[in-house]
Amino acid sequence: MADLANTPPLERPSVIAAHALIKEHIHYTPVLTNTTLNDLASTPQSASTLAGTPWAGQKPANPKIRFWFKCENFQKVGAFKVRGAFHALKRLMAEEAWEEISARGVVTHSSGNHAQALALAARTMGVPAHIVMPTISTPSKIAATKGYGATVIFSGSTSTEREAVVKDIMQQTGARLIPPYDHPDIMLGQGTLGLELQEQVLQMNGGMKGLDAIIAPCGGGGMLSGVALSCEGTGIQVFGAEPEFEGADDCKRGLESGKRIETVKTLTIADGLRTPVGAYPWTVIHDRKLVRQMFSVTEEQIKAALRLVLERMKMVVEPSAVVGLATALFNEDFRGIVEREAGDKGWDLGIVVSGGNVSVEALGKMFEVSPAKAERQEGKVGKDGEKVAENVAG
Amino acid sequence: MADLANTPPLERPSVIAAHALIKEHIHYTPVLTNTTLNDLASTPQSASTLAGTPWAGQKPANPKIRFWFKCENFQKVGAFKVRGAFHALKRLMAEEAWEEISARGVVTHSSGNHAQALALAARTMGVPAHIVMPTISTPSKIAATKGYGATVIFSGSTSTEREAVVKDIMQQTGARLIPPYDHPDIMLGQGTLGLELQEQVLQMNGGMKGLDAIIAPCGGGGMLSGVALSCEGTGIQVFGAEPEFEGADDCKRGLESGKRIETVKTLTIADGLRTPVGAYPWTVIHDRKLVRQMFSVTEEQIKAALRLVLERMKMVVEPSAVVGLATALFNEDFRGIVEREAGDKGWDLGIVVSGGNVSVEALGKMFEVSPAKAERQEGKVGKDGEKVAENVAG
Repeated sequence: MADLANTPPLERPSVIAAHALIKEHIHYTPVLTNTTLNDLASTPQSASTLAGTPWAGQKPANPKIRFWFKCENFQKVGAFKVRGAFHALKRLMAEEAWEEISARGVVTHSSGNHAQALALAARTMGVPAHIVMPTISTPSKIAATKGYGATVIFSGSTSTEREAVVKDIMQQTGARLIPPYDHPDIMLGQGTLGLELQEQVLQMNGGMKGLDAIIAPCGGGGMLSGVALSCEGTGIQVFGAEPEFEGADDCKRGLESGKRIETVKTLTIADGLRTPVGAYPWTVIHDRKLVRQMFSVTEEQIKAALRLVLERMKMVVEPSAVVGLATALFNEDFRGIVEREAGDKGWDLGIVVSGGNVSVEALGKMFEVSPAKAERQEGKVGKDGEKVAENVAG
Repeated sequence: MADLANTPPLERPSVIAAHALIKEHIHYTPVLTNTTLNDLASTPQSASTLAGTPWAGQKPANPKIRFWFKCENFQKVGAFKVRGAFHALKRLMAEEAWEEISARGVVTHSSGNHAQALALAARTMGVPAHIVMPTISTPSKIAATKGYGATVIFSGSTSTEREAVVKDIMQQTGARLIPPYDHPDIMLGQGTLGLELQEQVLQMNGGMKGLDAIIAPCGGGGMLSGVALSCEGTGIQVFGAEPEFEGADDCKRGLESGKRIETVKTLTIADGLRTPVGAYPWTVIHDRKLVRQMFSVTEEQIKAALRLVLERMKMVVEPSAVVGLATALFNEDFRGIVEREAGDKGWDLGIVVSGGNVSVEALGKMFEVSPAKAERQEGKVGKDGEKVAENVAG
């Protein structure tokens, strides 16, 4: 990593500078819209949907929402993580000891997208990459990381175990550490997607109107804080979204208590969001209040949003990528804000679709059908077809 | 349906005229490219992949292929079928008895995409639609058809059963029949995607070079024959692709014997391609030789191509939509043609991605993991992580 003494200040111009450094290496990913999802978000939830939620019995909110999906699932390596990885390497290149660094290589620990991202960035720059991955990482991600030419070293799953292996490698090889999220260079790199999203929405709206707000997923918080920096001073509000399962909503709980939560142990299906928010991102999210509010969603809400993106947008995304959409569709606190503050005008709402790295087997498992349900869905229903159809439509 | 005496001649200018009639009602769907798939198609298959195929022991072909995917999965109702449905209705509107027709409505039988397509077209034009669907149709398709305001009437699955119900409805209501594929107006409507694809590739190549060939899926043959008409006189070669499972490759077998096969009973996963080729499409495909050759692919090849599109292109498509890609990747007869005829220059090859209507449950079932395999894929492997990764990468 570039020396912390030399990192650019955490402000919007540094995100713009980061974009100039990396744009030749990344995809300018598309921004998509979808009428069906706009209609769904702009219709009050039914009382039966709200039963069993914290908002049971309340009058459902009636916001007007126009979505702008920033599709980082179409990014290189299938996720936004290449932005931070390329930026970190480019900043390293500006340091004097570059020749030495490029001989010794870089090292990181990551169970997924950051691993592939750093492997690609290192190969592009001609630097050896050592990637420490937990043994339980998704095999397709391990294979992809190796496919980009990195050396993969296995470790246990806890951060203590991972970091011990990283330390060993640094001692053996002299490799420089590129952490997955907790560093200014990574935050500034990830934030470049926020700049593009702002520019694209303005352009698609014929230069007449930009975004009102953005919701971004929050795991380690590198991307969320970067997006917040990209919006500083623009008037665009930034919100964060997390899974609530097994305490994965550490950033939300931390903001509520005023103290960062440093450990999380969750197996939420949003596997990119299992990490606690990092110290540097926290300074942007909490200390500087650049993220207005955090929201959390349930596993079922994540699955429902995932199904909508797959079946309606015909787009493959990973569960972590839809927590923002799930918030806008299902979280009454968020929906109430939009209704109260925007009224009939509604909001142009940017949704960061963070990645698309999910295997067909994992998708299959998420939407597994029980034998009884399978029978109905196969239409094995004798002659009572009308009834089947109604079951499904309802 | 418009009177057959009045249908336009089956030639390219009629496809252009059809496009002018329908373009305000349909999406101009994107054409996408993908480097990974180009590389894969332009690499010889391994001997082990070819073992057990008709090409076992032969030297694998070494073609150069650049794909251009015409993405009709992003079309309205998620499939190309809206093109034919809108064209058929627009042509009806040109007939004198329109007011009467619009009062009596239209009728068709379809288990899937044509049902939704006609329902949407009819609602847009303000015409009642009666859709006869087999009881075993996918419930989501039934629900979607009803969602577009059509009246759904259930029938048995055989064509005799379906047609009997259609006949009843025509007698009761006076509704006009809009068949799913076997009519010139439908063929000309579907062919409009071929025009767009030609135009888009030329544009994306900077006006310097257009397509060399197109592969399109063939079920009833309405779309394949329409695409062939759209290419007549352009020098672009047109090929058709079918599943081979349980005789679904009726068009291929018919071309080989010189006689159209009129009945097919198959449960190929490519559920849009279970119908035999129709009489009108046959005149274009066979009699006028506008389709150069038909190819068939196995269920496993369809699944492999589907996985690549889902995981690499991050795009949701239905199994029927990938038979063209599967042909280009896996069929040595086709690959040999490209190698021999194009050499190092290679082919710019259009792939018609016909639709994206598949439920997450259906996808899950297609890629179900066996318990043993699941355990490996979950990474429950003790300390031998390195070995797991190699299994997966291999």
